[in-house]
Amino acid sequence: MNDVPHGRNASLAADLFQQRYRDPGQAAPGETNAILEALLAHRSIRAFLPEPVSEDHLASIIAAASSAATSSNLQTWSVVAVRDADRRSRLRKLCANQAHIDEAPLFLVFLCDLARIEAIAAARGVAVEGTEYLEMLLIGVVDATLAAQNAVVALESLGLGSVYIGGIRNNPEKVAAELGLPPRVFPVFGLCVGTPDPARPAAIKPRLPQSSVLHHEQYDPAQAIQDIPAYDARMAAFQAEQAMTPEVWTQRSISRVRTPASLTGRDRMRAALANLGFALR
Amino acid sequence: MNDVPHGRNASLAADLFQQRYRDPGQAAPGETNAILEALLAHRSIRAFLPEPVSEDHLASIIAAASSAATSSNLQTWSVVAVRDADRRSRLRKLCANQAHIDEAPLFLVFLCDLARIEAIAAARGVAVEGTEYLEMLLIGVVDATLAAQNAVVALESLGLGSVYIGGIRNNPEKVAAELGLPPRVFPVFGLCVGTPDPARPAAIKPRLPQSSVLHHEQYDPAQAIQDIPAYDARMAAFQAEQAMTPEVWTQRSISRVRTPASLTGRDRMRAALANLGFALR
Repeated sequence: MNDVPHGRNASLAADLFQQRYRDPGQAAPGETNAILEALLAHRSIRAFLPEPVSEDHLASIIAAASSAATSSNLQTWSVVAVRDADRRSRLRKLCANQAHIDEAPLFLVFLCDLARIEAIAAARGVAVEGTEYLEMLLIGVVDATLAAQNAVVALESLGLGSVYIGGIRNNPEKVAAELGLPPRVFPVFGLCVGTPDPARPAAIKPRLPQSSVLHHEQYDPAQAIQDIPAYDARMAAFQAEQAMTPEVWTQRSISRVRTPASLTGRDRMRAALANLGFALR
Repeated sequence: MNDVPHGRNASLAADLFQQRYRDPGQAAPGETNAILEALLAHRSIRAFLPEPVSEDHLASIIAAASSAATSSNLQTWSVVAVRDADRRSRLRKLCANQAHIDEAPLFLVFLCDLARIEAIAAARGVAVEGTEYLEMLLIGVVDATLAAQNAVVALESLGLGSVYIGGIRNNPEKVAAELGLPPRVFPVFGLCVGTPDPARPAAIKPRLPQSSVLHHEQYDPAQAIQDIPAYDARMAAFQAEQAMTPEVWTQRSISRVRTPASLTGRDRMRAALANLGFALR
């Protein structure tokens, strides 16, 4: 169990497991490596230094994103890199006014992009019908998300930090107008990118125990919720340590999904997608 | 440009950039590291040795998955780990009969899971309405995909390989029945996992140039397609090297989205999601 390959120190991975799960019953990994440790050590960064992200780093981040899997190699995603401070400020107002969109020097908007393949087909005089279907929205959202997560792993390896901005979906049509998106291009999420401010560090947030998310052979509804009370307690301990406003995870999570109004305007997503040209058949 | 930090050999990253883009105009990264190189070196693996994936490795893969970002920390994803050969064989028949589902010792099915938060709320006597909305499907699909891509990076660091199986969406209701999924749990994709067979290696597949996917400040429709002919030529060269059936990427991609029938049954995704309890308001 504590056999350490590659001469690495297994105690680092064990410590990261402890921070991620805060669960004495969760065995630490027997085998570890620098990549696994980097993944385990992820935290979302919301406090940045002003220094810009270099073009060299951006090219590497995009190359990593493009290296992720993509459905049938269709590559139905794109990204808009926003550096202009005025544009970031306007986007901030569309994204629940989150201050880190102003603070981070680079804002990447990841797109489900069905327009490129339509344009390729149109150039050959071919009309495309498949993009009218919900399945193609799913393909584009998955492609964009696979790419984005590789981007996050890459940028962290370069000493940068980031935070996803789902708030971009609060006002999809206005974001599309700001970014000049053609029909059938949907902003899935933003990503603030920059150099983390060491004076305002972030901690590793505890996650649900493996018993709640990992099922064997078949989904077990009882197992999915049996350890939720323990997770509530671990999140409370984490919040106390971080001097955060105490919120019971269970209650906070229920409040996020309880009513249509809980969705901060995104209960109109079907209408928004229709306005962006997604028929969603 | 060729300043190499950490004593690494920049020529490896440059070679990986060349394999990924096959574009003499694409500058190689000035700064590199082992994580970036691992991401750039990704290939989907469809040929596996029979040896099982250890429980220790699976725990690390899931911990990496859980370490990815998740919308509002709701963690609206789960995964079913299928090792049973008979179940994998039945799932294979539901997923366009792809042989690697039988061959890989582990099949992970990543789920958009709105049932867990509903069950947590129900245990407190709270009825939930937000899960009836399309936005919550998007949240769950994004959460599952962020988790899965971290899982892929982690498993590759442990010497394993994988391939995503979007074919799981060909028959979502039958997959849900096979895995005992409760309502409002949707199988987003499968992932075959195992030890790559060194006798049947996979190559790095070329991707669209950065000019096609990366926009600055605003989306530029002309830029998105200007270098597509060059990509077609690079894919043709790749296919010739790999002794693959030659297909023009442009034509193949158009054929995948041209008609409802191009979607291999997934043109009925709205009906399938309704049958799985997603009202998609």
